Amino acid sequence: MTTAEFAAALRERDRFLILSHKRPDGDTLGSGAALCSALRRAGKTAFCLPNPQTSETYAAFVAPYDAPAGYAPAVVVAVDVADAQLFPEGFSGKVDLCVDHHSSNTGYAPLTCLNGAKASCGEIVLTLVKDLCGSVTRDEADLLYIAVSTDTGCFQYGNTRGDTFSAAAELLALGANNGALNIRLFRTQSRARMALEGAILTSLRYFRDGQISVAFIPLELLRACGATEDDCDDLAGIPGKAAGSVVGMTIRELAPGRSKVSLRSKPQVNCSAICAEYGGGGHAMASGCELDFPPEETLRRMLAAIDAHWPE
Amino acid sequence: MTTAEFAAALRERDRFLILSHKRPDGDTLGSGAALCSALRRAGKTAFCLPNPQTSETYAAFVAPYDAPAGYAPAVVVAVDVADAQLFPEGFSGKVDLCVDHHSSNTGYAPLTCLNGAKASCGEIVLTLVKDLCGSVTRDEADLLYIAVSTDTGCFQYGNTRGDTFSAAAELLALGANNGALNIRLFRTQSRARMALEGAILTSLRYFRDGQISVAFIPLELLRACGATEDDCDDLAGIPGKAAGSVVGMTIRELAPGRSKVSLRSKPQVNCSAICAEYGGGGHAMASGCELDFPPEETLRRMLAAIDAHWPE
Repeated sequence: MTTAEFAAALRERDRFLILSHKRPDGDTLGSGAALCSALRRAGKTAFCLPNPQTSETYAAFVAPYDAPAGYAPAVVVAVDVADAQLFPEGFSGKVDLCVDHHSSNTGYAPLTCLNGAKASCGEIVLTLVKDLCGSVTRDEADLLYIAVSTDTGCFQYGNTRGDTFSAAAELLALGANNGALNIRLFRTQSRARMALEGAILTSLRYFRDGQISVAFIPLELLRACGATEDDCDDLAGIPGKAAGSVVGMTIRELAPGRSKVSLRSKPQVNCSAICAEYGGGGHAMASGCELDFPPEETLRRMLAAIDAHWPE
Repeated sequence: MTTAEFAAALRERDRFLILSHKRPDGDTLGSGAALCSALRRAGKTAFCLPNPQTSETYAAFVAPYDAPAGYAPAVVVAVDVADAQLFPEGFSGKVDLCVDHHSSNTGYAPLTCLNGAKASCGEIVLTLVKDLCGSVTRDEADLLYIAVSTDTGCFQYGNTRGDTFSAAAELLALGANNGALNIRLFRTQSRARMALEGAILTSLRYFRDGQISVAFIPLELLRACGATEDDCDDLAGIPGKAAGSVVGMTIRELAPGRSKVSLRSKPQVNCSAICAEYGGGGHAMASGCELDFPPEETLRRMLAAIDAHWPE
């Protein structure tokens, strides 16, 4: 349904609870909080379900919308959640409405507002907020800027389109403080993360004349850097930045004898097919899998799998 | 003068030579090449003066516009050049026209089209190309996307405004291939650069409870990483990324006994005043200076200078 139809459906209802997805990012959290704010301005009772995996960076922005313990909602809205597997515990079959931009959305909700052509859910929620309230507040503009900018890697990823930039222009006109937000979102890292990135960069390994670049992240390295789970976000893009690299591989030791592989590739290599050999998958240019082997043996096996799928 | 007036001045003239500034970036090179292309479409003879400091990343894009040896221009146009000191050798007093976005532009040219409110010169040239030709080609859109995106750190720096995003939206509608360009401009690094960044990140030093973060780049490190001058671009932003840092300092050894300092700060500290103590300067939040001391002694002196200017 369109955002206008979805706004009409929201107007007919009340006592909303808004869900974000597991391992929440700026898009699900920012879009959900902006929708919550707009619903309140439309005279509704609305809260976001506190997401225990929310990183420190986002917590300050979304805290004002956290549902208190014992809040009993009448309507549950999922925002930026593609699949029921990404719901918080206990919400399977209980979601009434869904706003999303993942074309893979499984259609779990009776009413869904889906636009798979948008880079971020935030762009859809921007239109929805205008449909609902006829205006956008400065706080909502900040929240939606967080959504749009984080889902596009600050307008760097290939999903960034002309209308992504148009949405960003509109959000700035509405008062989004992009300068300060960018410093917090993209130009601030924990010391542990910086040490970890440094260690990864100084120990990159190259194969096939540099066409395969590999980052190694053993458990002892994470310990030595004092790195938390938050510090391990988005490491997968690092090795593929090396000039000449076609496949960038990150091998992270999850536990002794178990390793997680993330592959990123240029179009000529299909990562998804390679990861499928070990029960993983994803997209053609970004996939992952887990192996019951230590990092070194995982590397050996993955190099063989990449060899088998290397283009002629 | 306005872009329309500037376009009229261009139409009255012919045999153009376009200048970029010393240590050229994507804005001066991309804007200059796009203007050159538009002038040719308007029936003019136009070339860019080859800039010997052009990095490999930009060379492929601007090569089609390089002036042949012996080209004798009738009109010289400087693009994105704030000051005659940034001219190539031999052009002092010989520039006829200037397009620029630096509000510090010294007014060296008889005719200047200046808009100090724009984040990039590319945004001004976009309007100028439309005024001149009534259209923008896909190649020009790519060149102007290079200009706009590089001068804003891919829309991350604080100079990015609503109309920067509007210009980007327009360039994508005109066919700019932002996905592929971003990979080349922002997501590709030489192996030497990656090794250098890694070494810097693993050796950051912190003072004042982490409020001062320092990157150390001795000559032997550059040698060990095989780093060239190109690999040393934009290192100054690295130490200031550390969470809690107020002043990020980079100390690079230029020669035995001589060090270059780059300071980046949050608003509460004035870098320019600190660097002025050693004959340097710049902006309040981004300044530099050079000291006739090795890195360690430079650090000691700069920490004292920062102390003296630390806010109460």
